[in-house]
Amino acid sequence: MKKAAVILSGSGVYDGAEIQESVITLLALDRAGVNVEIFAPNIDQYHVINHINGKEMNEKRNVLVEAARIARGEIKDIKDVDVKNFDMIVFPGGFGVAKNFCDLALKGKDCVVEPVIEEFVIQALSEKIPLGFICIAPALLAKIASKIGLKLEVTIGSDVETAQIIESFGSTHIQCPVNDIAIDKKNKIITVPAYMEGEGIAEVAEGIEKLIFKLMDF
Amino acid sequence: MKKAAVILSGSGVYDGAEIQESVITLLALDRAGVNVEIFAPNIDQYHVINHINGKEMNEKRNVLVEAARIARGEIKDIKDVDVKNFDMIVFPGGFGVAKNFCDLALKGKDCVVEPVIEEFVIQALSEKIPLGFICIAPALLAKIASKIGLKLEVTIGSDVETAQIIESFGSTHIQCPVNDIAIDKKNKIITVPAYMEGEGIAEVAEGIEKLIFKLMDF
Repeated sequence: MKKAAVILSGSGVYDGAEIQESVITLLALDRAGVNVEIFAPNIDQYHVINHINGKEMNEKRNVLVEAARIARGEIKDIKDVDVKNFDMIVFPGGFGVAKNFCDLALKGKDCVVEPVIEEFVIQALSEKIPLGFICIAPALLAKIASKIGLKLEVTIGSDVETAQIIESFGSTHIQCPVNDIAIDKKNKIITVPAYMEGEGIAEVAEGIEKLIFKLMDF
Repeated sequence: MKKAAVILSGSGVYDGAEIQESVITLLALDRAGVNVEIFAPNIDQYHVINHINGKEMNEKRNVLVEAARIARGEIKDIKDVDVKNFDMIVFPGGFGVAKNFCDLALKGKDCVVEPVIEEFVIQALSEKIPLGFICIAPALLAKIASKIGLKLEVTIGSDVETAQIIESFGSTHIQCPVNDIAIDKKNKIITVPAYMEGEGIAEVAEGIEKLIFKLMDF
């Protein structure tokens, strides 16, 4: 039985993990017969957003505690993970990736990555664990890869500004529709635009399911 | 194009809507070509639970604001809904149904239902709108039905205590495995045990997909 690690950045598209992408990922993995463990970093969210009006709320929330909502409590701190235990690792998207895992949403190409995430992803890249990065997460991946001089081929769909940021990290951006994936065979990396490009949950699921299916092949 | 209303009780199994059941519902509806609108009541949650350790947190959260996380902001207050606009209505489960929509989790058969939810469901029952109730939500439905002398046939799986509560409301409980549904043809009601019975997301999805598929038939 193959084993996957799914890494969540909170719970909610505007300040955490994109919930629909996260659940679709968990469902596709379970249906593929993959044993799944879910992880998140034990850090504060950058902020808390009211998802109705988009305004910042005067609250503090913890990424690991909020991500546990998606995981039904079955979640662990990412700091203790050995990447070698897994056959694949998947990062769903959401602004949590660009606000909690790094500050890409605020600083663009000058972003800084949260150390526990940077260390985890560098280990995964070094060990050549097959990686699936969804939505905005491929931009984080390209940033971390640049730290070890690795140039990847990834997609975030067709958003020009984000594509330019990815290219500034030395990676190549591939245009891709919501229901398809970009494959970096050499580095065993699959990326998919999901809600960077998608309008509805069914087309987002089509792309993510392709990503999981292809990850099983590596 | 058929239209569905999905009613959420927050965001997180222990104090709100069960996230995985909610997303699976939205995905199955979109795949079936159904136009979906999402609603929640604008009320405070009964409490906030840390989903890692199960303990109550010293916080206040609003059901509508938290449910908006699952809905990516596309959600409206249930108080303004006309049930006649919809071909079907679906209630995912989670403790939010038994803590925010009523106090079943605390008071059992002596529970009281939140007025805005009671009024909405009584209208739906009176208009004979096809209804899908998931997980613990069928117990809420049986309670509300008892107010208008309606006896239903529903399932929450095989939990004896909850089944007895449902029978105390005058409805009949039908034993049902996680991957199947109970059909009350006369009242156009489909119920499914989901995480009341399920261990994994794939088997939970199998049942919910059957529920949506069957709702399309009415």
